Amino acid sequence: MTSKPHTTLSEPTRQLATLRQRIDNIDAALIYMLAERFRCTGEVGKLKASFQLPACDPVREKEQLARLHALAQEAGLDAVFTKKFFTFLVGEVIARHEAVAAEHCSETDTSA
Amino acid sequence: MTSKPHTTLSEPTRQLATLRQRIDNIDAALIYMLAERFRCTGEVGKLKASFQLPACDPVREKEQLARLHALAQEAGLDAVFTKKFFTFLVGEVIARHEAVAAEHCSETDTSA
Repeated sequence: MTSKPHTTLSEPTRQLATLRQRIDNIDAALIYMLAERFRCTGEVGKLKASFQLPACDPVREKEQLARLHALAQEAGLDAVFTKKFFTFLVGEVIARHEAVAAEHCSETDTSA
Repeated sequence: MTSKPHTTLSEPTRQLATLRQRIDNIDAALIYMLAERFRCTGEVGKLKASFQLPACDPVREKEQLARLHALAQEAGLDAVFTKKFFTFLVGEVIARHEAVAAEHCSETDTSA
């Protein structure tokens, strides 16, 4: 029987490294997903600006949040964080929509 | 030759619905990824509490942020948002680690 390759002291270090590798992999996926999400919301922003639709849509947001809560429950993610995350994302998206709309207005503004 | 199935007015509505479907799909993936991330960081929290390691690790955070910035650049996600997102996530994780550590302390506290 061989002795353990790790001492008691190095065991948590090894476990921590394993978990961090998993976290790093997840973070890469999150970054690529978020980039894709902003690509989509960027297109939504341009569309809204072109057709002078409001930057925010409370009905859509309510539906999104309800859906995310259901998904979060299924996934085991707590509701408080889910709401915080959604608020964080939507805040960012609306700010971007407003910037696009303002840019669009200044481009099409015929007043002098 | 048949006429167009959509009027000019319904075209942006259709485009918006298509984009929103993509956003909803991405959001589902984000929720599952975040749930998995918190499962990992939850294990990290317990490990840190058991071995009385500090809840935050500035060296690790610096490395993570540098890595995420590189990934974000590759993905086309802006650096300002990436930093905001990382700060948001890390803040949440540290608060959870501290809660686990406090719980662990109260369980193992022999002072009276």
